[in-house]
Amino acid sequence: MFTRLRDLREDRDMKQREVAAYLNCSQQVYSNYELGQRDLPTDVLMRLSDLYDVSVDYLLGLTDDPKRYK
Amino acid sequence: MFTRLRDLREDRDMKQREVAAYLNCSQQVYSNYELGQRDLPTDVLMRLSDLYDVSVDYLLGLTDDPKRYK
Repeated sequence: MFTRLRDLREDRDMKQREVAAYLNCSQQVYSNYELGQRDLPTDVLMRLSDLYDVSVDYLLGLTDDPKRYK
Repeated sequence: MFTRLRDLREDRDMKQREVAAYLNCSQQVYSNYELGQRDLPTDVLMRLSDLYDVSVDYLLGLTDDPKRYK
């Protein structure tokens, strides 16, 4: 479901454990986010939006335009 | 936390029970979303984005620009 999360992470050459540390969650929890086996809480959406500098709509696959409009 | 949800609903002259019916949840659950007492699941974010034709970033208060970029 959230394949875009993996693509963004790999584009930044980050490991799952690094993103998990940034989110203050376990690597297992983060892995489940990426696999779509656990829903993404809004605070995680917002933190990942900051980390990758992309819109939440892009994270969710609702747009192919990663730009954030402030 | 999610005051924007109430504003959007009231702008459309909708009742909480109407939005709840659209989301297939109880009015109590929807009320808790609006009050920020229950986190918004991603499927609810996406359905509300459709209902109001606004970006998820706008729903979450990350931008003041409601426009969706496809």
